[in-house]
Amino acid sequence: MNTGRMRELGEKRSVIRELFEYGNKRKAEIGVENVFDFSIGNPSIPAPKELSEEICRLLSEENPLSVHGYTSAPGDLSARKAVAENLNERFGTNFGAENLYLTCGAAASLTISLSAVVEEGEEVIIFAPYFPEYTVFIETAGGKPVSVPCKWPDFQMDFEKLSEVLNEKTAAVIINSPNNPSGAVFSEDSIKKLSSILSEAEEKFGRKIYLISDEPYRELVYGKTEVPFVTKYYNDTIICYSWSKSLSLPGERIGYILVSPENPDWKAIYSGICGAGRALGFVCAPSLFQKIIPKCVNMTSDFSVYEKNRDLLYNSLAEMGFEAVKPEGAFYLFLKSPEPDAKAFSEKAKKYEILIVPSDDFGTEGFARISYCVPTEQIERSLQSFKKLAEEYSL
Amino acid sequence: MNTGRMRELGEKRSVIRELFEYGNKRKAEIGVENVFDFSIGNPSIPAPKELSEEICRLLSEENPLSVHGYTSAPGDLSARKAVAENLNERFGTNFGAENLYLTCGAAASLTISLSAVVEEGEEVIIFAPYFPEYTVFIETAGGKPVSVPCKWPDFQMDFEKLSEVLNEKTAAVIINSPNNPSGAVFSEDSIKKLSSILSEAEEKFGRKIYLISDEPYRELVYGKTEVPFVTKYYNDTIICYSWSKSLSLPGERIGYILVSPENPDWKAIYSGICGAGRALGFVCAPSLFQKIIPKCVNMTSDFSVYEKNRDLLYNSLAEMGFEAVKPEGAFYLFLKSPEPDAKAFSEKAKKYEILIVPSDDFGTEGFARISYCVPTEQIERSLQSFKKLAEEYSL
Repeated sequence: MNTGRMRELGEKRSVIRELFEYGNKRKAEIGVENVFDFSIGNPSIPAPKELSEEICRLLSEENPLSVHGYTSAPGDLSARKAVAENLNERFGTNFGAENLYLTCGAAASLTISLSAVVEEGEEVIIFAPYFPEYTVFIETAGGKPVSVPCKWPDFQMDFEKLSEVLNEKTAAVIINSPNNPSGAVFSEDSIKKLSSILSEAEEKFGRKIYLISDEPYRELVYGKTEVPFVTKYYNDTIICYSWSKSLSLPGERIGYILVSPENPDWKAIYSGICGAGRALGFVCAPSLFQKIIPKCVNMTSDFSVYEKNRDLLYNSLAEMGFEAVKPEGAFYLFLKSPEPDAKAFSEKAKKYEILIVPSDDFGTEGFARISYCVPTEQIERSLQSFKKLAEEYSL
Repeated sequence: MNTGRMRELGEKRSVIRELFEYGNKRKAEIGVENVFDFSIGNPSIPAPKELSEEICRLLSEENPLSVHGYTSAPGDLSARKAVAENLNERFGTNFGAENLYLTCGAAASLTISLSAVVEEGEEVIIFAPYFPEYTVFIETAGGKPVSVPCKWPDFQMDFEKLSEVLNEKTAAVIINSPNNPSGAVFSEDSIKKLSSILSEAEEKFGRKIYLISDEPYRELVYGKTEVPFVTKYYNDTIICYSWSKSLSLPGERIGYILVSPENPDWKAIYSGICGAGRALGFVCAPSLFQKIIPKCVNMTSDFSVYEKNRDLLYNSLAEMGFEAVKPEGAFYLFLKSPEPDAKAFSEKAKKYEILIVPSDDFGTEGFARISYCVPTEQIERSLQSFKKLAEEYSL
């Protein structure tokens, strides 16, 4: 590969990671309780306790050679069956184990999917604001990221701009809803409109355009919000999922890829995914965590804290005069910067020990991401500092 | 990437996998006890029981957010420290946590290392017989595999042939000792000779040539056999390790890359490895299994069964007139085919319900691999069939 690119990727810390490291240093200096660290999207509520129980049961009752052994490359059959049945129940779909490929988490789901459908030099559309690693993963697959903005103030897709960039080189479009970093959820109308535009483009350019739906936050929605299930609207869909957030297991690297059987080419795409997993060095997803899936497929961590945090933070900041979209999902609040330069805003916040990520690396200018997957007390304690920040901007 | 290549890799079953599937079918037909399946290199002895205890202790005593949380990309600091200290004690080396990068197993160690040091179009030397996936991993990194034979009857490297293929495009050399499939261990003399040839080639061609030592079978050696620790002989060494075999955890995907600090460029190479891990979609190694490392770093599964199997199988087959090198490590016996065509030999063995892998995919003609990581009774029961096979060849 391009060894210079690898070196650069290894040396360059992300803005998020830098802020996080700064926060750790600052906490050591002035005390954890005095730093309001909203930099990182790490779940702050534990995995369901049934999960630990199931792990210990597997270890004490099952044959260790099978618990820790290689599974088939696509994953343990009962885990895949459990996922298919769970999706079919929830969304009225018609999936089988053969449509699913278990992975080492969402990042793996994405690099594998992209490697399976993107040829060298082709384009992949992403909607800004986006998770910054998308550009890295697209480039690994030999693709070129093309950014299309979402619209203020609801952060739905800008379809006019989308239509302008679609062309004969477009291999795929990535969506991420609920969204990191905006907290927006694409409405059913938006997904319908997107599907019809992509179908037209497929016809116009005489090629497949895959819709890759990155859904680690699918279950993390508030109130009556529903996340449309994309395979029902667009046949050439590949869903990338991870249990990192829903079961609070980000370090365990367990997720899946689902290739919609509504796509007449799905078997070839599925083969490409198996091949890409093999080529990139993913032999199988971690086996112990595959084996807890049948037991845990219908569980989530207790998300009520995130909803409480969202309400407290959104309402308090709105009252102070800050502007933001009320997040409908995920655990991020995308705050409009009171000055055009988001980096300057993030630096000013630091003066009040508030650590929030400027939006530039998410492909959007003039915002800051607040990760509210933190203890509620931290938000309570931070409000006075946010108040001072608001005053500095005379909000 | 090349989506056609991905599809082909996903569709084409390996010979090993095909034989294994045939075995499963045959077992269903005539009974497990009547099929002598030596096709797959899956550990047949369980993980140490302390490992399960440590997992349940972590789950009950430690904070689940930390147990299952993201670690830093290079891996949990105490796990890396434990590995460095363990290596320093055993081999008199001088490693620190900063030289280690934890991975999702040996395949990941290899794809990451190759992506970090191989430029598009460069060559990577492998010694035949070799693990067939090496060619896949090298091609993913954009490299070209160049095969150099080992010599019958001791399966040490053929240095004359090696010298012939080294050139200004050689980026790396992979060794695998103890070897899959031959069971050979490269002697200290061989490693010294290899090192001196590579050092000369580095000077002659004015470039770095990395020695990538793939060591999942390091601890699996018999009698007084010692596996030389390669960083002591050659500075530009990258070690790829996995706990799959030593702790019988092949499905859990946990291993490491070690970049020798004796290489003056090690920091840049280490950065390249961090970057490649990121680019390929490996966020971190599975966190729960990272966290058992400090406790388990000095343990192995009980290998005595493998040694017993080796002795029984090697001695019995030798007595029947078969030729093979006595394996010094790993759990494979590389049997010389009594006829030039190894595939024909493997087919004949099937008549007696013996499943052994013809050597062609390992890059060597005229042998068959017997994986003796099976219950000893299977070997005992199979001997009569091997005897018939020997008779068919009038050995």
